[in-house]
Amino acid sequence: MDIEDTLLMMPGPVPVASRALRAMSKPMINHRGADFSAMYDDCCEILAEVFQTQNDIFVLSGSGTAAMEAAIGCTVSSDDVVVTLENGKFGERFKDIAARYGKANPLEIEWGHSFDLAEVEKKLEEGAKAITLVHNETSVGIQNPAEQIGKLAKKHDALFILDGVTTLGGSLVETDKWGVDIAVVGSQKCLAAPPGLSMLSVSKRAFEAMDDKGNLPYYLDLKAYKKSGDKSQTPYTPAVPLFFGLQEALHIVKEEGMPSRINRHATGAAAIRAAADELGLELFPQLHDDNSSYSNTVTAMKAPEDVSGNDIKKDMMARGITIAGGQSHLSGKIFRIGSMGNFQPKDLLLTIQELEIVLKNRGVISEIGKGVEAANNVLDRLF
Amino acid sequence: MDIEDTLLMMPGPVPVASRALRAMSKPMINHRGADFSAMYDDCCEILAEVFQTQNDIFVLSGSGTAAMEAAIGCTVSSDDVVVTLENGKFGERFKDIAARYGKANPLEIEWGHSFDLAEVEKKLEEGAKAITLVHNETSVGIQNPAEQIGKLAKKHDALFILDGVTTLGGSLVETDKWGVDIAVVGSQKCLAAPPGLSMLSVSKRAFEAMDDKGNLPYYLDLKAYKKSGDKSQTPYTPAVPLFFGLQEALHIVKEEGMPSRINRHATGAAAIRAAADELGLELFPQLHDDNSSYSNTVTAMKAPEDVSGNDIKKDMMARGITIAGGQSHLSGKIFRIGSMGNFQPKDLLLTIQELEIVLKNRGVISEIGKGVEAANNVLDRLF
Repeated sequence: MDIEDTLLMMPGPVPVASRALRAMSKPMINHRGADFSAMYDDCCEILAEVFQTQNDIFVLSGSGTAAMEAAIGCTVSSDDVVVTLENGKFGERFKDIAARYGKANPLEIEWGHSFDLAEVEKKLEEGAKAITLVHNETSVGIQNPAEQIGKLAKKHDALFILDGVTTLGGSLVETDKWGVDIAVVGSQKCLAAPPGLSMLSVSKRAFEAMDDKGNLPYYLDLKAYKKSGDKSQTPYTPAVPLFFGLQEALHIVKEEGMPSRINRHATGAAAIRAAADELGLELFPQLHDDNSSYSNTVTAMKAPEDVSGNDIKKDMMARGITIAGGQSHLSGKIFRIGSMGNFQPKDLLLTIQELEIVLKNRGVISEIGKGVEAANNVLDRLF
Repeated sequence: MDIEDTLLMMPGPVPVASRALRAMSKPMINHRGADFSAMYDDCCEILAEVFQTQNDIFVLSGSGTAAMEAAIGCTVSSDDVVVTLENGKFGERFKDIAARYGKANPLEIEWGHSFDLAEVEKKLEEGAKAITLVHNETSVGIQNPAEQIGKLAKKHDALFILDGVTTLGGSLVETDKWGVDIAVVGSQKCLAAPPGLSMLSVSKRAFEAMDDKGNLPYYLDLKAYKKSGDKSQTPYTPAVPLFFGLQEALHIVKEEGMPSRINRHATGAAAIRAAADELGLELFPQLHDDNSSYSNTVTAMKAPEDVSGNDIKKDMMARGITIAGGQSHLSGKIFRIGSMGNFQPKDLLLTIQELEIVLKNRGVISEIGKGVEAANNVLDRLF
């Protein structure tokens, strides 16, 4: 099977629309010229709607991790404490980055479990310059309570840094209303743009927290981005072809409209959960209250007894569908299906159908069709 | 005029070959899969030939500036001294980066002048963990003496960090022979790949200088790149479409062969210099000895009396050819023509022809044709 015939149903990268792919083939332009600036402004304008923010928006030529580092590296100094909330792999990454620039005070709970807000507040009471939250913990399929944690951050005067890498563009994120000082998104997730860019919004308060003498990171110095951004430019050479692709992908987002897009994502994930329930697959997240929820963009399921999640992934791959296994200590124990970007109901139904066949071949279920039916009952809402 | 009809003759970005542009339109692939790894290895193998090195090669999803920062940020701690050699804008950038991570001890001379090796050695005698050199100072069109400074670095036990952003892939760079510990290149220059990637080679000695506890930069942590690189992967999401383009661009480099490519670049720049001489345009660099030379990839000329270099740039732009003006305090005083990447003699001759028309229209010269003739006499060597 040719790799180009594979359907990507993992939590990023996701399939990029043909028109966005074609846009990347345009001849190179001078990134200091007016055409680049117009494209930059167009992207930032649509992103402001996606982020629901009046804050400055910047596009970094680097992955979501680069933007996470920019957020912390520019606002946190060596004596500053950062409360990092960790219930999965990306929460852990924030802790690691925070520890390089300042002092991390992590709240580490079992991966996949929901946070207890009282415990979060206890951490903040110990004093913190900033608090980080991964809105959608992709590694375990849980959506964390961003709005509530934004309120706690405000109450305790801590900067609120939100990793919206796998929610922005697919799930509701109200950057300004929730008091998010820096919100971060990756290009190759819900926005369905090519991988390699990350975008972030930066509040006035976050800028005020930055060092007068210039921040420590250089390539990721948000003050340099601000200075250039005010002239509709980037401080260093941008990845021009990726901007061509991003602009087209953002136009697709705008044409669909964010409310429809959010509804499609919520419905898609609900359909996968309905199929999982029907097939006897247990969801991995453990929700202890209503503040957290299952992810709207990636569904993590426990591997059935005696079957490795990696084998399910491998079987699916052989059938032309790429899903994800578990990361770190969850390898083999779970598998994950992404439903982010421009997916259509038929993509999800094909994925469920193939999953049923894989499970039947492995002796987990005895007949196929019920999962598809359950998913379709949910997806019907979209038609 | 449509922007896509513009000929880029600036010192990057340069035109990208159609086959490399088309490659970027391929559907997205999983960057943790075998196909990405094969592409990554293929790129690194060709780059090792370009760099003439046995050292590890890494590809960063970020511009040349990101790679410059990775080189310094990973090897230099706050108490370490870095001798930064500055005779142009990019030398200044190394000084700025060094000052963020350690103590910069700059040797600043007038932009465009060549370094005195005795002065360089005096700086090293004051003690240094590392020394940085911009091989080709794009901002002023001078090629600095990398081999000789490599010898001084070795003698004084300093790490040798070389910005080969606008030489690697176009001019001779012998990474191992010259004792370069970290050599850096950008994708969008002599290699004629799309902008947004940077590549660097890292010596064993450079790795030994890195902090055991993990380097300060996170996204640019070369130890993380080493760990992932050994598995033919990148630590964070790579800019996959740019890799598609890079691979194709590197195949073009391989097909031409580095010796032919270096000869074509040297001849191209010599042709521009011959035309400049014929047209009475003074070259900007001031060479005080034979260790330095005019750049083989970008030619910087003083603006004629009573004409701003920016006006020449503007006039050329209106005629469909993008050249560069001067940066920082050189704005208006010089203009620069790039001859890097896959340019052909006809591209250079068209550029000289249009430059002649612009100069005639501005009353600088009285007849056209002599510059083209002089350039063609040099370019004839390529046929």
